[in-house]
Amino acid sequence: MSEADDVLLSRDGDFTTITMNRPRRRNALSRTFLLQLTDAFTETAGTDARGVVLAANGPVFSAGHDFADMASASHADVRDLLRVCTALMQTIQSVPQVVVARVHGLATAAGCQLVASCDLAVAAESAAFAAPGGKGGWFCHTPLVAISRNIGRKRAAEMALTGDTVDAATAADWGLVNYAVPDGELDKATLALLQRATQGSPRSKALGKQAMYAQLDRPEADAYTYAVEVMAASSQTPEAQEGMHAFLGKRRPTWPA
Amino acid sequence: MSEADDVLLSRDGDFTTITMNRPRRRNALSRTFLLQLTDAFTETAGTDARGVVLAANGPVFSAGHDFADMASASHADVRDLLRVCTALMQTIQSVPQVVVARVHGLATAAGCQLVASCDLAVAAESAAFAAPGGKGGWFCHTPLVAISRNIGRKRAAEMALTGDTVDAATAADWGLVNYAVPDGELDKATLALLQRATQGSPRSKALGKQAMYAQLDRPEADAYTYAVEVMAASSQTPEAQEGMHAFLGKRRPTWPA
Amino acid sequence: MSEADDVLLSRDGDFTTITMNRPRRRNALSRTFLLQLTDAFTETAGTDARGVVLAANGPVFSAGHDFADMASASHADVRDLLRVCTALMQTIQSVPQVVVARVHGLATAAGCQLVASCDLAVAAESAAFAAPGGKGGWFCHTPLVAISRNIGRKRAAEMALTGDTVDAATAADWGLVNYAVPDGELDKATLALLQRATQGSPRSKALGKQAMYAQLDRPEADAYTYAVEVMAASSQTPEAQEGMHAFLGKRRPTWPA
Repeated sequence: MSEADDVLLSRDGDFTTITMNRPRRRNALSRTFLLQLTDAFTETAGTDARGVVLAANGPVFSAGHDFADMASASHADVRDLLRVCTALMQTIQSVPQVVVARVHGLATAAGCQLVASCDLAVAAESAAFAAPGGKGGWFCHTPLVAISRNIGRKRAAEMALTGDTVDAATAADWGLVNYAVPDGELDKATLALLQRATQGSPRSKALGKQAMYAQLDRPEADAYTYAVEVMAASSQTPEAQEGMHAFLGKRRPTWPA
Repeated sequence: MSEADDVLLSRDGDFTTITMNRPRRRNALSRTFLLQLTDAFTETAGTDARGVVLAANGPVFSAGHDFADMASASHADVRDLLRVCTALMQTIQSVPQVVVARVHGLATAAGCQLVASCDLAVAAESAAFAAPGGKGGWFCHTPLVAISRNIGRKRAAEMALTGDTVDAATAADWGLVNYAVPDGELDKATLALLQRATQGSPRSKALGKQAMYAQLDRPEADAYTYAVEVMAASSQTPEAQEGMHAFLGKRRPTWPA
Repeated sequence: MSEADDVLLSRDGDFTTITMNRPRRRNALSRTFLLQLTDAFTETAGTDARGVVLAANGPVFSAGHDFADMASASHADVRDLLRVCTALMQTIQSVPQVVVARVHGLATAAGCQLVASCDLAVAAESAAFAAPGGKGGWFCHTPLVAISRNIGRKRAAEMALTGDTVDAATAADWGLVNYAVPDGELDKATLALLQRATQGSPRSKALGKQAMYAQLDRPEADAYTYAVEVMAASSQTPEAQEGMHAFLGKRRPTWPA
């Protein structure tokens, strides 16, 4: 890939970094760019990478949708764009890898939704988050779906209604990101969290991550009905068996390829 | 309106203040008072006010239902009362204005539910919150619906089972209110939050607020299905178009009347 | 009962303590042990105890399932085990008593799920919590059902994906437990919370607790539909009537036996 690519994919050991590389467009999520990002996640899903860092080049993590794409778009075109955007968010939750957002600068609107949709997130202290649509003429309806599932209701309402930025420390306090760290430690902290989150059998973890999203937001009894079946079935996988036998035998497990 | 009215409505600039004015009854939510409050919100809904402050006169924000009304009421009468009460809570969430609770003193039972049901809330440091029904002979079943959607489960259980008061700082930490501020700054902080929350197009914000409540508590995929349609349809409104074109043209937007 | 029993039941005043007493097995939740614990809760449910402390003997609160039971179990056997385990969690939520977990040491996997499933929880400062399945060959699918309903999504994902321990102070900050207290004050703090949580009519509180779990995780309007009916019906109970009349008469209530 060339430096001119909008999405950079790089593999380093077990981890793939997917970098949004439209700094002059503030990493705005045009239809093409959303599809490129989805492709990058889908491509990575098929590799043996164990973790993914979603990062960004330039001063802004992502400014969300590009009004230049939307200002004169028809209802059908906006609907299509939002469905493409939702597909990216859902792809992030469905890829087998653990996905951590490495956030510096501003993450606004669908850019903030990206952070909320990653499994984990680490923010630089100077990062900030906002759902600014309601401050203007529209409203961050779809970003709020993801944001309101990360933080409390009053806080989600404050973000959506005021549109004001929330700093990284507050985002960590509210649970929108896992950690807020000094800017100079962002890379290190992101990799440390991803390292911790990718131990063990990748295949079991992939199933676990997907099952987690499937059971959330449901009445607890329904969630148990589902989770019991997933957990029982997965007990028979070579990975689960190897994990248990290695534990009992006090030896290091080796995961099937 | 006279000082003797149970509900005071006052308009100041863009904001309407709805004041509970039964201080000698600790702003207890009798059937009549609930209907008066609902009327006040419904009346305000039809105005061009952009925000609503829900406030209270007297030392108590609201003590919830009045046992004098309930102690000998029939099953049917209590059911009717609770439906009237629920209608008020749902009206607050459905009016087009942003509603912020300005809480001083005690907010207990359905009074705490009121705070939980407002879009936003600011509390004086000396305010306190409780769901005390379970401490006596009954239980705060319906208040808990709203409270448990603002704060974590263990904390909701603690409030409902102990019935003890939670101070304002803890309420802010748990997410039941957005801010706890020194008593002398309550008015200023409430207005400052409402000012921030009412920028932009009122019509788009009204839709946004209502859509937020409609998508919460649902499985994420269902919420997206809904939010995509609302957001796509609302992209064609004059407000959304004006907002985007103003942004792109680097000019101040003007919202259609 | 003898000291050799796996589950110790002791009654002191209004409270029953159910103690996991398999310290050499790290209170691992074998099928038999799960059934014994469920029996202990069911037996207590039929008594006039007002509260239950779930405690543990030995250095570990509970290590969750025992791999020795599971490593060679069939799909059907694991499914059966998980259903037995889920039944314990649901029994804890359905008994009429308030249940508080008194947590010292490690609470991992289904042991952490136990804490998440109790109505309330107090942890010693030195306690720690983990969902470690994903760190090995499997995944804490069913524990995560309970854990993710206590804490925010990013934090639940961190626990499940990393498998690392969370200390008591963090668990309290996230809402997995109500309080983290110095180790020497664990008993006192647990009893103090249970005392506060068991005031009032036991029968009304039992209904309240069960109704709380029934309405959680549901769309708010559905929750209100349900909670209004429960609250209206329960207004006619002798307990609710006594509570209201005692309050109005400024006398101490007495609850029907």
